[in-house]
Amino acid sequence: MSFGERFAEACSRAVYPLCLGLDPRVDEMPALIRSRAVSAARGDGTAVRRAIAEFHELAVAAAVGLLPAVKLQMAFYEQYGIRGLEALGDTIAAARRNGLLVVVDGKRNDIDSTADAYARAFLGTTTALGSESRAFAADALTVNPYLGWDSLVPFARTAAASGTGIFLLVHTSNPSSVELQEAEGGELFLRAAEYVNRLSSEYFDDPLVTSVGAIVGCTFPEAARAARAAMPRAPIIVVGYGAQAGSADGCAACFTPQGDGALVNASRSLTYGWGQEPQSDEDLVEAIRSRITATGETIGSALASNV
Amino acid sequence: MSFGERFAEACSRAVYPLCLGLDPRVDEMPALIRSRAVSAARGDGTAVRRAIAEFHELAVAAAVGLLPAVKLQMAFYEQYGIRGLEALGDTIAAARRNGLLVVVDGKRNDIDSTADAYARAFLGTTTALGSESRAFAADALTVNPYLGWDSLVPFARTAAASGTGIFLLVHTSNPSSVELQEAEGGELFLRAAEYVNRLSSEYFDDPLVTSVGAIVGCTFPEAARAARAAMPRAPIIVVGYGAQAGSADGCAACFTPQGDGALVNASRSLTYGWGQEPQSDEDLVEAIRSRITATGETIGSALASNV
Repeated sequence: MSFGERFAEACSRAVYPLCLGLDPRVDEMPALIRSRAVSAARGDGTAVRRAIAEFHELAVAAAVGLLPAVKLQMAFYEQYGIRGLEALGDTIAAARRNGLLVVVDGKRNDIDSTADAYARAFLGTTTALGSESRAFAADALTVNPYLGWDSLVPFARTAAASGTGIFLLVHTSNPSSVELQEAEGGELFLRAAEYVNRLSSEYFDDPLVTSVGAIVGCTFPEAARAARAAMPRAPIIVVGYGAQAGSADGCAACFTPQGDGALVNASRSLTYGWGQEPQSDEDLVEAIRSRITATGETIGSALASNV
Repeated sequence: MSFGERFAEACSRAVYPLCLGLDPRVDEMPALIRSRAVSAARGDGTAVRRAIAEFHELAVAAAVGLLPAVKLQMAFYEQYGIRGLEALGDTIAAARRNGLLVVVDGKRNDIDSTADAYARAFLGTTTALGSESRAFAADALTVNPYLGWDSLVPFARTAAASGTGIFLLVHTSNPSSVELQEAEGGELFLRAAEYVNRLSSEYFDDPLVTSVGAIVGCTFPEAARAARAAMPRAPIIVVGYGAQAGSADGCAACFTPQGDGALVNASRSLTYGWGQEPQSDEDLVEAIRSRITATGETIGSALASNV
């Protein structure tokens, strides 16, 4: 099955069109996670890895059935070095074991054989010294389009061969996104949207669902509407909701007229900010589950009033 | 000392204005490196790490005194997963031990606290569970400017606080670079050049040398001349020479009128393509040394005829 088919199927099974963003911030995790990780590590240097792996194991458990995908933010794993990247492997394994799609948010991009190597790292396999392995087994990777068409082809080729996908940055959610992405009279980001369509039609085989998607910020509703119109079939991950004050209306602009084809990402608002500390794993799972439900209901209402 | 001062000083001590690109491709390393790594690992899974670490230890030994910096291509480390990233740490340590500046070519970019996390990962420190550590201790990191000004500030802040630097992608060397980077009548990349100047003046303290540099392809000599003119003082790492058929003239365009302020990167052409296998470590070091010398002399002649 192609990534596009798996994405569509996972979305149709889930209760809410949400993506759970996992951005590990160890010192902001609930005290019960941190103290247990420190005790279990007994000073052997694995406490950070244990904290991330356990916290995400519980977050994944909370999300199962409610939403179809997790988005793992590479920067937050990389900041912890090797231990963080081991925990990335742990998180990927937990999500896959529980049937959630794994989008690695690395915003990678480079050219030629270097782009090939990034694609292999997250979407394919690498052969060395007679054995083949997967470095980080994502279902999809986010890719920065700034280097242009030829830099994107290696990602599409590898994704097509391995049944994985890519999400191109089309319009990001930050205030300065407009500086380059809206050059050319406000429309440069539509060139990235064209890449999405062209990669999909030239490198992938599925006529109805596409394995090349887009990252679109809900903080610029007009741009979001233009992006959706330019890419009628591409899956979109909507960013900027919650912590960045994006609107539910901006989110709705990223969905198809049928109200599907997009997932709204939420990270910190679902997993951090523990004013009242959870007292047990069950407490924590329940708390994340109720935050997912509340966010999902809000997005659902915005979509309903938009149809 | 700021990164800019260290860069200027390292360049003035080196024989050639070259940067040694280290892009590990284990299966293309000389047979003596591969077979020794396999033997030493005795099947414990460390052969890939050993091969990369040893090969780069020798490449660094070959470069010492001749050139001031190495550029480590993240994609080629990431493709080998955790073992590759452990080898990244080994390569960084070898280069620093030998007095070479370490530029991590990660082309990272994101927004807000995520950009902060990338900056911490390569240029700063991360605190977790009561202890502070450096994930990957680079002297400088390459950064993609596509997300605009606010995405770059966290990198500049961290670099200024830690005496490290950043190199912004201003014009890349690949054919498709023109598609977005030369939007707005050919000049969008000059907006990235403005970011370089503005980051330097707003976040760094040194009046004569700057810690914010640029990546410029020598495959577009006119654009390179325009980029250099727009950033008279910024250090430039010139890409696209050698394997990508960039011209020595295009390289010369990136230097200041005084013939300094830039390093020409060469990767595969210095360290791969072993038609005649080196028979010993000494052979290998000598072979890389003579390739560095030959490339350095070619660039030197181009610069001399350009003044």
